[in-house]
Amino acid sequence: MEINGVNIKNNYAEAFGIKVTRLLVTAANQELAKVAATEATGYGTSVIGCPAEAGIDCYVPPTKTPDGRPGYAIMICNGSKKKLDHELLERIGMCILTAPTTAVFNLLEGDEKLKTGFKLKFFGDGYEEKVEIGDKSMFAIPIMSGDFLVEEKFGYKEGVAGGNFFILADSQMSGLVAAQVAVDAIKSVEKTITPFPGGMVASGSKVGCNSYDFLDASTNEKMCVSLKEKGMESNIREDAHGVFEIVIDGEDEESVRSAMKAGIEAACTVSGVIEIDAGNFGGNLGAHKINLHDLF
Amino acid sequence: MEINGVNIKNNYAEAFGIKVTRLLVTAANQELAKVAATEATGYGTSVIGCPAEAGIDCYVPPTKTPDGRPGYAIMICNGSKKKLDHELLERIGMCILTAPTTAVFNLLEGDEKLKTGFKLKFFGDGYEEKVEIGDKSMFAIPIMSGDFLVEEKFGYKEGVAGGNFFILADSQMSGLVAAQVAVDAIKSVEKTITPFPGGMVASGSKVGCNSYDFLDASTNEKMCVSLKEKGMESNIREDAHGVFEIVIDGEDEESVRSAMKAGIEAACTVSGVIEIDAGNFGGNLGAHKINLHDLF
Amino acid sequence: MEINGVNIKNNYAEAFGIKVTRLLVTAANQELAKVAATEATGYGTSVIGCPAEAGIDCYVPPTKTPDGRPGYAIMICNGSKKKLDHELLERIGMCILTAPTTAVFNLLEGDEKLKTGFKLKFFGDGYEEKVEIGDKSMFAIPIMSGDFLVEEKFGYKEGVAGGNFFILADSQMSGLVAAQVAVDAIKSVEKTITPFPGGMVASGSKVGCNSYDFLDASTNEKMCVSLKEKGMESNIREDAHGVFEIVIDGEDEESVRSAMKAGIEAACTVSGVIEIDAGNFGGNLGAHKINLHDLF
Amino acid sequence: MEINGVNIKNNYAEAFGIKVTRLLVTAANQELAKVAATEATGYGTSVIGCPAEAGIDCYVPPTKTPDGRPGYAIMICNGSKKKLDHELLERIGMCILTAPTTAVFNLLEGDEKLKTGFKLKFFGDGYEEKVEIGDKSMFAIPIMSGDFLVEEKFGYKEGVAGGNFFILADSQMSGLVAAQVAVDAIKSVEKTITPFPGGMVASGSKVGCNSYDFLDASTNEKMCVSLKEKGMESNIREDAHGVFEIVIDGEDEESVRSAMKAGIEAACTVSGVIEIDAGNFGGNLGAHKINLHDLF
Repeated sequence: MEINGVNIKNNYAEAFGIKVTRLLVTAANQELAKVAATEATGYGTSVIGCPAEAGIDCYVPPTKTPDGRPGYAIMICNGSKKKLDHELLERIGMCILTAPTTAVFNLLEGDEKLKTGFKLKFFGDGYEEKVEIGDKSMFAIPIMSGDFLVEEKFGYKEGVAGGNFFILADSQMSGLVAAQVAVDAIKSVEKTITPFPGGMVASGSKVGCNSYDFLDASTNEKMCVSLKEKGMESNIREDAHGVFEIVIDGEDEESVRSAMKAGIEAACTVSGVIEIDAGNFGGNLGAHKINLHDLF
Repeated sequence: MEINGVNIKNNYAEAFGIKVTRLLVTAANQELAKVAATEATGYGTSVIGCPAEAGIDCYVPPTKTPDGRPGYAIMICNGSKKKLDHELLERIGMCILTAPTTAVFNLLEGDEKLKTGFKLKFFGDGYEEKVEIGDKSMFAIPIMSGDFLVEEKFGYKEGVAGGNFFILADSQMSGLVAAQVAVDAIKSVEKTITPFPGGMVASGSKVGCNSYDFLDASTNEKMCVSLKEKGMESNIREDAHGVFEIVIDGEDEESVRSAMKAGIEAACTVSGVIEIDAGNFGGNLGAHKINLHDLF
Repeated sequence: MEINGVNIKNNYAEAFGIKVTRLLVTAANQELAKVAATEATGYGTSVIGCPAEAGIDCYVPPTKTPDGRPGYAIMICNGSKKKLDHELLERIGMCILTAPTTAVFNLLEGDEKLKTGFKLKFFGDGYEEKVEIGDKSMFAIPIMSGDFLVEEKFGYKEGVAGGNFFILADSQMSGLVAAQVAVDAIKSVEKTITPFPGGMVASGSKVGCNSYDFLDASTNEKMCVSLKEKGMESNIREDAHGVFEIVIDGEDEESVRSAMKAGIEAACTVSGVIEIDAGNFGGNLGAHKINLHDLF
Repeated sequence: MEINGVNIKNNYAEAFGIKVTRLLVTAANQELAKVAATEATGYGTSVIGCPAEAGIDCYVPPTKTPDGRPGYAIMICNGSKKKLDHELLERIGMCILTAPTTAVFNLLEGDEKLKTGFKLKFFGDGYEEKVEIGDKSMFAIPIMSGDFLVEEKFGYKEGVAGGNFFILADSQMSGLVAAQVAVDAIKSVEKTITPFPGGMVASGSKVGCNSYDFLDASTNEKMCVSLKEKGMESNIREDAHGVFEIVIDGEDEESVRSAMKAGIEAACTVSGVIEIDAGNFGGNLGAHKINLHDLF
């Protein structure tokens, strides 16, 4: 199968379950909303080493937010409910409440709820007030620069982590630009994030480690272009000299599929892209298998 | 004392000791370096609730970096050596190693070192190599998109956290713009960061909580403009309707003083700014007392 | 009439006819498309002194462009067909053709066409080729870094220039932040631009000049806050200390109305905003009169 | 000669004389200064088709500006004094005076002066005032949002246009990223600009046109990668598939040389870059010849 002359391999991405939340951060203007959203979703590439997987989903214009101000939809994810509860509390409390003019709304209805706003209200020391914005139950907490508004409860649900595809290109930089435009395209797919820096993964890993038995994961040497160039045995095709991975978390498998489709199609418009592949672990680890050919 | 007609109160900021590291993140171009630096320093406003205090110090042009590429100096801080060690490892390993084309250099010579690069090298599964760049001892770790370079050891030292000043203005938005330009000015002062979102704190807190005894800190109600507007007793002067705090961490007290001076002078150029004050806890908690009048 | 407690004056904006074009600039990634769109629409605030009125309308994601790449819709306007023809040719030829990886598509069907692509093709010195993308007739012109693609003809039509409203606020900076969020909101209204720097006008003018008879226009002294503060007679209400104007050009009056509505509603969410007014010249100069109260 | 394994050809850039001005645009914060500087320098890639060559030189922090606010140094250039006078007047009057909170200072002492501020003051309709900032003679012109400050006179001098080098790379995208980092590096060299979009030129031209005798310039077909890939005779070396040009204007030849050196060294850090070359017209057209080998 080909798109724009790029080979789409008949392979599947293996993705995992993760608990996801989705919030809306609004502020007095778009720049201020972005600052808060960025701080709250930093240090959140993978739960392997970060306390959460987090990212900005998309911009929401003033005409579509409950308070008529510009905002960003963000997602914060963790496999453990307890850790998710902690992350939501601290990321909102330390990174959004502290940012000027912000408010936070819940965007995900789910059977299960975290009482993040309820817990944050105590910071108000009795001066907080319950307010309604539309049909939303919020707390207004007086802070130095004005009032911080936060919804009482945030829904969470079982979503998907680790949706992915690989871009193989004629040079490292062709792969890089293709990865950038893939991420640009995925920004338009709601309910998904690309949690790694700039949305792309420069370092693929394998399960286990041959040289050091105390490590659970290590570099996937057969997918390293610099080792291939040195003549080592490689799983990278002969004519590819740049490889990048895009990793996607989403509210559900359908959203992740849409994001993979949009990202792959965009990557295939970049000159020098040769092949799209996907990453899996043999199919026994993840709950979701997404075949690339099924996307189109 | 006045600057541009703005009253500088005869008050002092009380700041604390914290262990600081200072790193240089370079990449193929400036944008890529910024992406990695931003991810690695996110979720890092205050150790009260975040796993570290972290931020971008300044841009370093290609002519001044060891590898001739553009970079950003960043700082990562924590009061505990053990936690600092963990944060450095994970923030570099999860947020910079995973970003395309990056390298990380140590910028802080100190008697004490963290072996972050030495630990990260194991990810290379035996394919890593020791290389020298100038007089620096680095590891080249093969990753999917090329080689990730990281210095073997990172120095840390006892620095300063919580250097601060308050901006009081005729409106919330005058205070906001003044806080923005203060942060702009502090970006030019090396060895300092403003770890809060966009560099400013919209929410000042007090020690303890009157209404809920299970909380160690809560909103400083006497510095909340919305409570003052409702007629509550307030420590905010009558004509001020906007209050913002700038918080600064630095490698040493001298750097923090320079940052406070630059930030205050810049804030005083904004129309509507009335007064500059500073925050302290009576002088018994922090190791550093910085009087505003001594800065000029 | 009030929105969020802000007084909406019963006044009308007087707007003018202008010839408008609307183009789509795509590139390999979003950043590259923005660079080209920004260069091509610079030096284009008002035809009073600039060779065109120009601006970025909105971002168009890869899924909605003819070539599957990210792009920006831009508008270039002038009252004279001849000047518009010249501006389109030079702004595309000098600012987009010269930018890496770009293509330019027509977004405005109109009875009248400019043959901009047809003229630009001669730069190809015979090596250019006619190609079809979907139903669009394009030229592929070989340039150093690849091929530049441009549509053969660009439609233009009689649109609207100078749609406007004024934001009056309790301080200069409240007005500024309100103007910023008004512009943020207008970005979501298709077929409109705010051609002034950052989308806002800091300097309102009046027709004629009292002190220097060689000038056709000069500062509107009765709307200058610094003159009011000095005690001069003023048309600014007593409690307003900041005034900003938003100026909108659009493909038609309906689009301009939508933009005014979205911008005013957003401005009214900012603390410190007191009143929204509109600018006119007595109703005898412009073809369009848009009453503020009719927008809601 | 080689840098990082990249061949530096023994060739020279041919550059031309042009009249240059250099201004400082300050504003209430860095973002506002950038907005005004960007608008004022747009539509300014080359005087072949644009009314000026213009660009942002560098950021100037608050500690180094006459009014203690952040600013950007910009350059506006034209071969004709009369046209330069017009461009300075309109680009300042239409794009900076109209931007919120701005001021404009002269940065270039020269024997010859343009009376731009003197002419702009008439917009004040008699309400303008002469003020001194340090040793600078300025006019304060009341505008709607406050006072606009502009220096009375702006120096100009004979500078250099068209300093250049070519980057040849293994793929289009390697060349693109290398061009980006070259521009990043040149931003740190004062008194120079890269006036093309994003600082780079995607389209090199030759003098004259073979197929259409009414054109003075046309695509340089022997430097077009897409024509080379089709098998046409080419001046591009066999292994190069991406070519980008960097064009530099500067206050003097020394500045342009520094910029070329910094840009070339940065470009040579990018993987996939093969060769650096320079553009000339046989040496008979331009006043300046800069040999690449002499830079190092």
